[in-house]
Amino acid sequence: MRILFIGDIVGSIGRDQLEHYLPKLKQKYQPQLTIVNGENAAAGKGITEKIYKQLLASGADFLTMGNHTFDKKEIFDFIDDAKKMVRPANFPEGTPGKGMDFVNVNGKEVAIISLQGRTFMPPLDDPFRMVNDLIKEAKKRTNLIFIDFHAEATSEKLAFAWYLDGQVSAVVGTHTHVQTADNRLLDQGTAYITDVGMTGPYDGIIGTDREAVIKKFLTQLPVRFEATKTGKAQLSGVVIDLNESTGKATSIERIMISDDHPFFN
Amino acid sequence: MRILFIGDIVGSIGRDQLEHYLPKLKQKYQPQLTIVNGENAAAGKGITEKIYKQLLASGADFLTMGNHTFDKKEIFDFIDDAKKMVRPANFPEGTPGKGMDFVNVNGKEVAIISLQGRTFMPPLDDPFRMVNDLIKEAKKRTNLIFIDFHAEATSEKLAFAWYLDGQVSAVVGTHTHVQTADNRLLDQGTAYITDVGMTGPYDGIIGTDREAVIKKFLTQLPVRFEATKTGKAQLSGVVIDLNESTGKATSIERIMISDDHPFFN
Amino acid sequence: MRILFIGDIVGSIGRDQLEHYLPKLKQKYQPQLTIVNGENAAAGKGITEKIYKQLLASGADFLTMGNHTFDKKEIFDFIDDAKKMVRPANFPEGTPGKGMDFVNVNGKEVAIISLQGRTFMPPLDDPFRMVNDLIKEAKKRTNLIFIDFHAEATSEKLAFAWYLDGQVSAVVGTHTHVQTADNRLLDQGTAYITDVGMTGPYDGIIGTDREAVIKKFLTQLPVRFEATKTGKAQLSGVVIDLNESTGKATSIERIMISDDHPFFN
Amino acid sequence: MRILFIGDIVGSIGRDQLEHYLPKLKQKYQPQLTIVNGENAAAGKGITEKIYKQLLASGADFLTMGNHTFDKKEIFDFIDDAKKMVRPANFPEGTPGKGMDFVNVNGKEVAIISLQGRTFMPPLDDPFRMVNDLIKEAKKRTNLIFIDFHAEATSEKLAFAWYLDGQVSAVVGTHTHVQTADNRLLDQGTAYITDVGMTGPYDGIIGTDREAVIKKFLTQLPVRFEATKTGKAQLSGVVIDLNESTGKATSIERIMISDDHPFFN
Ligand SMILES: [Fe+2]
Ligand SMILES: [Fe+2]
Ligand SMILES: [Fe+2]
Ligand SMILES: [Fe+2]
Ligand SMILES: [Fe+2]
Ligand SMILES: [Fe+2]
Ligand SMILES: [Fe+2]
Ligand SMILES: [Fe+2]
Repeated sequence: MRILFIGDIVGSIGRDQLEHYLPKLKQKYQPQLTIVNGENAAAGKGITEKIYKQLLASGADFLTMGNHTFDKKEIFDFIDDAKKMVRPANFPEGTPGKGMDFVNVNGKEVAIISLQGRTFMPPLDDPFRMVNDLIKEAKKRTNLIFIDFHAEATSEKLAFAWYLDGQVSAVVGTHTHVQTADNRLLDQGTAYITDVGMTGPYDGIIGTDREAVIKKFLTQLPVRFEATKTGKAQLSGVVIDLNESTGKATSIERIMISDDHPFFN
Repeated sequence: MRILFIGDIVGSIGRDQLEHYLPKLKQKYQPQLTIVNGENAAAGKGITEKIYKQLLASGADFLTMGNHTFDKKEIFDFIDDAKKMVRPANFPEGTPGKGMDFVNVNGKEVAIISLQGRTFMPPLDDPFRMVNDLIKEAKKRTNLIFIDFHAEATSEKLAFAWYLDGQVSAVVGTHTHVQTADNRLLDQGTAYITDVGMTGPYDGIIGTDREAVIKKFLTQLPVRFEATKTGKAQLSGVVIDLNESTGKATSIERIMISDDHPFFN
Repeated sequence: MRILFIGDIVGSIGRDQLEHYLPKLKQKYQPQLTIVNGENAAAGKGITEKIYKQLLASGADFLTMGNHTFDKKEIFDFIDDAKKMVRPANFPEGTPGKGMDFVNVNGKEVAIISLQGRTFMPPLDDPFRMVNDLIKEAKKRTNLIFIDFHAEATSEKLAFAWYLDGQVSAVVGTHTHVQTADNRLLDQGTAYITDVGMTGPYDGIIGTDREAVIKKFLTQLPVRFEATKTGKAQLSGVVIDLNESTGKATSIERIMISDDHPFFN
Repeated sequence: MRILFIGDIVGSIGRDQLEHYLPKLKQKYQPQLTIVNGENAAAGKGITEKIYKQLLASGADFLTMGNHTFDKKEIFDFIDDAKKMVRPANFPEGTPGKGMDFVNVNGKEVAIISLQGRTFMPPLDDPFRMVNDLIKEAKKRTNLIFIDFHAEATSEKLAFAWYLDGQVSAVVGTHTHVQTADNRLLDQGTAYITDVGMTGPYDGIIGTDREAVIKKFLTQLPVRFEATKTGKAQLSGVVIDLNESTGKATSIERIMISDDHPFFN
């Protein structure tokens, strides 16, 4: 089975990129399952129901989220009905939405898990402990397990992936918005990358308006951050191949589309 | 002019990698200047005089450092005599060592600057402000200016580089120990990469013993971290080409050597 | 000389407390100078010109600020004309407003300095280094030097005060909004308290709506914080006596007014 | 029932203070139960078996701990046999030691709970959630419930106490090492203080060698911190009276002994 994962969609530029390139990427890579991180899809902060539907309409089969999940208030109105979305499972018990779900891909189930790190981030529940329970539950139904680990620190992401090596099909990092070059298969067959990178403005700073972020660092004054709305764009993703009988990965490749990396069929 | 920069050397495995591959890399890329980040060269923490000399003997022309600069006490005995090393310039005034220096490359001077970020890091002096003074000083002698920006957050690194775009030849990030895939030329000709990645153990967690780091995340107990001493190795670097008359970069390419990326001449 | 200092005024409840009790406190303690921290005076976040004038009209001679100085946008319209206000001096160079000023008290000048800590706070310039320059400048005119050190960590506040012991008249901490019981004269005559505490709601959580803050800790979801608007109130302050010829303090006493500590003349 | 609680014992000076004053305090206040925080008793970092016994021999009936619980390696050898000690209950499942225990006081049981905050601290399990389970378990045996909440931020401590108001007898804060002046009975009868303060050196910085801490703030270099070993001393505590039938508190008073606050019988 081939899974295409696209990193954090940032604002309208990110949504446009997805709409434009996802059909081409599907044609080129022929994935059976396409997962997209949508935590920044609404102007950089959270997601609305309209945008949730738009991302699915663009070709995403399923969405993962992150620390920005609940930035837009209307999320509370639709998250419990959103069948195609997981938010970090380690939000406190009782948080709306779900942290793991299963999708049926040509008769095979794939577990999709979202978890968030804690280093330099808010103190959610322990992802290292919680993932064991989630895996146990998932294994009752499938050995195809995909995890989006939304975290800041390289050490936490690498530790998390090595901790799970051989138990899950893939651990892909998100949140820093910069794609790392360390995609690899770990020793026991788990596909890994520290960060997939984001899909959105190419000339902003992790998707945010460049002048605003620089002003913040220069002045330490309150600055309003907004997703860059015009200019160049990029798309970041990975393609992962899984052995459907063992659940282990056989390859993970990076996708990067930008002016410096034009898309070729 | 071609500059070869090798990311953080971690422990004995990192030093061995450098010794083994640097001659081959020089033969392949023919750089005029080789700069190496040595902040983790002594068992992952700091540097000793012996190792300082070893890294130069392995072919480094100059060393940059980072937050681990002063981890080994003996640094205070030799840093002021170490002609080929810069530590982050934004340590408080009066800190031993220097933050900028010049090397002569076939009659051309190159300014080498080390600065450290502050997001998720200790509160050194403001690198955004200080870099202006350093650049002004450097420009009196050369327009070839190379900066190792040692920082954690992708936003701070990108903001720093865009802030300097066109003013310096290159801003290469270090510290996270994971190579990013976003090497590019910014609009006004500054070469940039968020993180070069590290040179050392390939199976540790950012160079540190895997079991120890996982134990820390699982238990939150005091754990002693040490650089992994045996096993597979990697080397991370970038090759940057500069236009000697304008000081602008014309290309930046990534180097990654590991079992998954074997070296080819 | 006797100085009365009142800790962070929080919202309308805090302003009402000041208006109500400051005349009584002046009558009781007969201070020659009254300084008030106003960083939370406008609904908990920052200050407006109207409120700036209101606090002075209530009897404050001078205001200090903190990390919330610039929360209300209109501050930029009047801060440079606000003669009776200092904001943390260690904001980056070029920040509107001033960090030190002098007030004339019956022919004697008193230097009032605001500085902000960096532990668990944004990376402003180094307060330990900057305070030396400020003191040097102040000493040209007076040896009566009052410092509001706006900081989170007890270690940084104590270190700052001991570092300055004997050089300044008083270092009073603000920012945590909880009064500490460690008011004392340090060995060389500097009056010190780790935190003066705040003036505002008595039943909120550091002045903020109780339910909102508890919800934040329970859910980790985005929560809008507002200063508590109704209910019981408190006032926190210190009274410091200085020897006008030496500039040293001779006493520092705490003031706490609340339902549990009713005011007595 | 009267409970005497003494804040963090720091090093040999702290242990000496306890030995010297605890008999006098018992005579003066006649507590039925004496609880002491011992997390810094061994030279400022952790505790040894010998010191554990020494604190009990000095008159403590029971010890609470904090983030320094496991600093001394030998803790792992004796913590599971230490009948009179709790460490923060929200360390990950499987951590040696226990987070709640019961002591029999003249036929009445008192539950003693240790929990640690997470703001500006390591990401332990959620204390707000865990405390509900602990209280439920405790209530099966007693309604006299004493909690040492070991935390940094005033907001988290106040939120925690208000969250539990009326459910437990007392929430006393520790960890900042500076006594706060906000001891009070909350609306529903829970005794509260943000921080009890520490017992140890009076001239150090939160118990640590003054010069070392100042050097750290000035230089940002690696500095070795040690508990101050000579000089003046202080003792910090609270006395809490409980209604044994309701479990509610009827008073909470602060104790502070130092050169500036000499002990009187
Ligand atoms: Fe994101
Ligand atoms: Fe994120
Ligand atoms: Fe490093
Ligand atoms: Fe580093
Ligand atoms: Fe405040
Ligand atoms: Fe503040
Ligand atoms: Fe402590
Ligand atoms: Fe502590």
